[in-house]
Amino acid sequence: MTDYNIKYTDYQQAFECVLTKFCDGLNCKPDILAESLKYSLQLGGKRIRPVLMLAVGDLLGLNRERLLNYALALELIHTYSLIHDDLPEMDNDDFRRGKPSNHKVFGTGNAILAGDGLLNTAYSILFSECFNGNDNVSAAKYICDCAGINGMIAGQSADLSQENSQNVDEEMLDFIYENKTAKLIMAAVVTPSILCGGKYYSELRAFSRDLGYLFQLTDDILDVEGSFEKLGKSIGKDGTEGKYTGIKLYGLDGCKIQADLLAERCVKILEGLDGDTDFLKGLAYFVRQRIY
Amino acid sequence: MTDYNIKYTDYQQAFECVLTKFCDGLNCKPDILAESLKYSLQLGGKRIRPVLMLAVGDLLGLNRERLLNYALALELIHTYSLIHDDLPEMDNDDFRRGKPSNHKVFGTGNAILAGDGLLNTAYSILFSECFNGNDNVSAAKYICDCAGINGMIAGQSADLSQENSQNVDEEMLDFIYENKTAKLIMAAVVTPSILCGGKYYSELRAFSRDLGYLFQLTDDILDVEGSFEKLGKSIGKDGTEGKYTGIKLYGLDGCKIQADLLAERCVKILEGLDGDTDFLKGLAYFVRQRIY
Repeated sequence: MTDYNIKYTDYQQAFECVLTKFCDGLNCKPDILAESLKYSLQLGGKRIRPVLMLAVGDLLGLNRERLLNYALALELIHTYSLIHDDLPEMDNDDFRRGKPSNHKVFGTGNAILAGDGLLNTAYSILFSECFNGNDNVSAAKYICDCAGINGMIAGQSADLSQENSQNVDEEMLDFIYENKTAKLIMAAVVTPSILCGGKYYSELRAFSRDLGYLFQLTDDILDVEGSFEKLGKSIGKDGTEGKYTGIKLYGLDGCKIQADLLAERCVKILEGLDGDTDFLKGLAYFVRQRIY
Repeated sequence: MTDYNIKYTDYQQAFECVLTKFCDGLNCKPDILAESLKYSLQLGGKRIRPVLMLAVGDLLGLNRERLLNYALALELIHTYSLIHDDLPEMDNDDFRRGKPSNHKVFGTGNAILAGDGLLNTAYSILFSECFNGNDNVSAAKYICDCAGINGMIAGQSADLSQENSQNVDEEMLDFIYENKTAKLIMAAVVTPSILCGGKYYSELRAFSRDLGYLFQLTDDILDVEGSFEKLGKSIGKDGTEGKYTGIKLYGLDGCKIQADLLAERCVKILEGLDGDTDFLKGLAYFVRQRIY
């Protein structure tokens, strides 16, 4: 394994420990509510947001313990967004990470409640952190606003509204990329900075915005070139369903050129920071080249 | 107008002012997202949770300004729960407050996002309050937990799971009443106590739990005896759809007897408190006798 892979696995395992403890301790009735929450949380996934948060925490010299609940809350928010996004009246995806989507297992009503439950629980965890002082409140509110009506929810709403529109407009595509995808990546990266009194705030914000765009661009590329086996979700859907994607605006080759530029920009920003940024640079390259 | 009505109107208008300001200042894209949020918030309603919160604040001598954002957040949470509850795969209600439900106007996908957006915005408002100290954090977390997977969402999940079950069991009915309905009423009443360092905490908690049960009992009674014109929503649905209601367990007359007992218990608890509790007693009688 490369150094990058060893570190990724270390961060991922640290997070999986916290998540397993959370799932084991999940105590709510009726059984189907607890089961439906755990089902989606335990489908696996790259855990890229928690990994990013812990890695940036290390770069800033932050005690990992201070970040674990923020990482957990953010992954709960990400998971709720996938459950609601997969619903028939949203993206209508029957598969997620190679397994049936939440609503295919538990039904649409229970899936709506599972999503609501994950979102609400994320904030209950973050309110507990707020007892530790105003930096903690600022970090919690930043995550909340990234997920909200001027963040991820705005991006999802725009994405839904633009389905089947004939013209793809760069401004609208930017809006969707920034809000639907980049905002939660930004939450992961900027949260440790806020907890460190704003250290490297503007650099990390710029880095995570570019990384978020890159993540969505490679998602669009994989929707054309990827395989169900690797991705664990339906592919080719965005094109056939008239979604607003980078492919429509820039073409496949244009998207790849843009993705290269974004990865380079990410690395350049990291080079301006003191400390060991090798892992974060590796992560930007991984996102550029990912096949899942 | 009676004293009770004058006071109710005063509290309601104070809250409507805050809500109007919030709606006017709502700045999010795309337009359909902002419109769908405002549509459901501005459908009217009794605003019983904000009214209760402000009235208990007066009883405890709390500055009203300290409560307005809590009242706003709670009404946003209540409104999100109605939007998601009205969805076809949940309660499937086409009408709310005499107007088409959110999903009938904006479609199911947008209604899911409107609900998510209201819930998320409620917590953004409450995180802002958390900068004001640990009592404020405790109050915010209390509201969050009342709305969560050991509160309202648990009640909705149980309600959904029990549809069409043949046997109505008292323990399950209690669970649904307490969580689906009483928890947000408790949030309204207990929040001012938490902000006053816990003054009358246990008495107010007991009062609001009984008032919440009473509210759901009269809801069940109105589903049999009420009219669409007064209620603004479909009636008789719970019976025909095999919902778990007090009517099935106790019969209509049994429910009325229980409702009388609950209203008396509410008044008795209030009589044990110092200060002017006439308005809150009046509110308990109003809930018992309500026709809308």
